[in-house]
Amino acid sequence: MQIGVIGASTCTSEVASLAYDVGKLIAHNSAILVCGGLGGIMEHASRGARDAGGLTVGILPGFDMTDANPYIDIAIPTGLSHARNILVVRSSMAVIAVQGSYGTLSEIAIALKLGKPVIGLNTWDIGPEIIEAKTAEEAVKKAILMIQKRT
Amino acid sequence: MQIGVIGASTCTSEVASLAYDVGKLIAHNSAILVCGGLGGIMEHASRGARDAGGLTVGILPGFDMTDANPYIDIAIPTGLSHARNILVVRSSMAVIAVQGSYGTLSEIAIALKLGKPVIGLNTWDIGPEIIEAKTAEEAVKKAILMIQKRT
Amino acid sequence: MQIGVIGASTCTSEVASLAYDVGKLIAHNSAILVCGGLGGIMEHASRGARDAGGLTVGILPGFDMTDANPYIDIAIPTGLSHARNILVVRSSMAVIAVQGSYGTLSEIAIALKLGKPVIGLNTWDIGPEIIEAKTAEEAVKKAILMIQKRT
Amino acid sequence: MQIGVIGASTCTSEVASLAYDVGKLIAHNSAILVCGGLGGIMEHASRGARDAGGLTVGILPGFDMTDANPYIDIAIPTGLSHARNILVVRSSMAVIAVQGSYGTLSEIAIALKLGKPVIGLNTWDIGPEIIEAKTAEEAVKKAILMIQKRT
Repeated sequence: MQIGVIGASTCTSEVASLAYDVGKLIAHNSAILVCGGLGGIMEHASRGARDAGGLTVGILPGFDMTDANPYIDIAIPTGLSHARNILVVRSSMAVIAVQGSYGTLSEIAIALKLGKPVIGLNTWDIGPEIIEAKTAEEAVKKAILMIQKRT
Repeated sequence: MQIGVIGASTCTSEVASLAYDVGKLIAHNSAILVCGGLGGIMEHASRGARDAGGLTVGILPGFDMTDANPYIDIAIPTGLSHARNILVVRSSMAVIAVQGSYGTLSEIAIALKLGKPVIGLNTWDIGPEIIEAKTAEEAVKKAILMIQKRT
Repeated sequence: MQIGVIGASTCTSEVASLAYDVGKLIAHNSAILVCGGLGGIMEHASRGARDAGGLTVGILPGFDMTDANPYIDIAIPTGLSHARNILVVRSSMAVIAVQGSYGTLSEIAIALKLGKPVIGLNTWDIGPEIIEAKTAEEAVKKAILMIQKRT
Repeated sequence: MQIGVIGASTCTSEVASLAYDVGKLIAHNSAILVCGGLGGIMEHASRGARDAGGLTVGILPGFDMTDANPYIDIAIPTGLSHARNILVVRSSMAVIAVQGSYGTLSEIAIALKLGKPVIGLNTWDIGPEIIEAKTAEEAVKKAILMIQKRT
C-alpha cells in the first residue's frame, strides 16, 4: 500500500509535528510513504516513517538524487519540475494533505480529478470530496479505510 | 504574446458564448491563443480566435494530433495526460479561466504557484490573487495589461 | 502539416547552411516547422523557415519563453528538460534529423519507436528504418511524401 | 544505491535468464533495482532481485499501479508514456542495458547525454562510452565500480 503525503516545503513546528505523526502512522500500518522528497511537510513525514522503520519514496522535481531529504529511501529525480506533483498523486492510493499552499492545492485538485481519496488536515476547503481529519491518527485511518474500500 | 484560456471540456451554451468572445478578442489583440486543444471551453475559445483570423495552439493530453478540436492550428500532442495542464500554463503569459472544475482548479493553482496572472471569469474563488472579470472584454483587457506590466 | 527538425544546439557553418535550407523548404511547402527551440540546428532551421515566411514552433526544455531562439513564433516552455524531446517527436508528422549527438539519437530512437518517419541528413546510422537524404531538398521532399502516404 | 536495468518488454528465455541474474546480483549487492516495471527484461530482472530479497522500483508508462509486474515493490505510474524512460535513467546511478530495441536505445542515448554510466550486455553498439560486459556478474560489478568512482 502506497500513501502520499502532500504539503509545503516550509512549515511551523506545530504542523511539522503533525506531519511527523502522519509519517510514523503510515509506517506503523506497513504502508509505503510517497511524497515530493523535499523539506517541510515532506521531510517531517519522511522522518516519522523512517523512525517507525518504514519505507519512503521521494518523487523529486529536480535532476539530482541528492536533492532528497535525508529520510528518503528511494529517490526519483524526475527533472519535471512542478509536473512531478502529478506523479506523487498517481503513485499514491490516497493522499493526506497537511496544510499547504498553491502547490498543494494543485495536487489536491489533480487528486480529485483522478478520483483519488484526499484526506485533509488543516488544508484547503474547496469541496465536499475532501475528507476532513482532525488528527494524524484519524487521517491515516481514513486513508487506509478509503483504500481498502476500493480494492 | 501568448494568452491561455483554461476551462472544462464540456460547458453550457451561455459559457460557450463567453469563451468564444474571449478567443475572438485574444485574436483581435494579435495575441496567440494557447489552450488544452480539446472540446468545451477550449473549442469555443479556439473557434472565436479562428473566426477573428487568429492563431491557436492546442497542447493535448493524448498522443494524436487528430484529438485536437477543428479550430486548432498547431497541435502539440504531449502524451502526458493531466501533466499537460502545466505546459498550458507555462506557455501562456497570462491565463483566463472560464468556469471550470478540478482540472481547471489545478491549472489555476499551478499558475498562481508560478506567479502567472490569472484572470477569472465565473471561476474558482480560492484567493485574492485571482483577478476577477465580469465580461470577455474585461478579461482579455486585464490579461494584456498584466502581461504588459511585466515586460 | 507539422514537420520536425532535430539536431544539436551547436554546429559547423556547413551544417548550419543545410539546416537553414531545410527550414526554408519546410516553409515553402506551407508546413509548420517544429523544433526544440534552442540554438544550432534548431535556430538555423527556424531562421530558414522564418525567412521564407513560415511558422515556427519551439518546444523548449526550460521554463522561460525567452529561452527560444529569435526565429521562434510560438514558444512552448515545457520545464521538462530532456523529456521535451519526446514532445518534439510527437508534435511532428515526420522528423528530419540533421547530424546530431546523443540527444538527437534519443529523438531518432523514440521516433522510430513511435513509428514516425525519420529522414536522416548526415546523421546516426542505426537501422534501415532511417530514410537517408543527401540534400535539404531531398529530405523535405521525402518527409512530405511519407506524411502524404500515411494520411 | 539505485541501479537501473533497461531492456525490451519481450525476450527470449536465454536473455531472460541473463536479466534474472542481473537482478539477483543487484540485490546481493544491497542495491535497489530500478526499471520500467513491465514485462520481459524488466520482469525477469525484478524477479531476480525479489528472489534475492532485494527491493524493486517500477517506473511505469501508464496510469495504473496494477500495470506493474508481480515482482515490483514500489510502483510509480507516471502516465507519461515513453517520457517515463527518462525518469528510469534519472533514478539510476548507472544503467545496465540488456539487449533491447528502439525504446532501449532511446534510454541508452539519454543516459549517455546525461553522463550516466551505461553497461551493455549484448545491446546497441553506438559508441565507445558504452561499457561492455559479457556476463551478469561483470555487468553488475562494473556498474557498482562506476558508481563508486563518482561518489
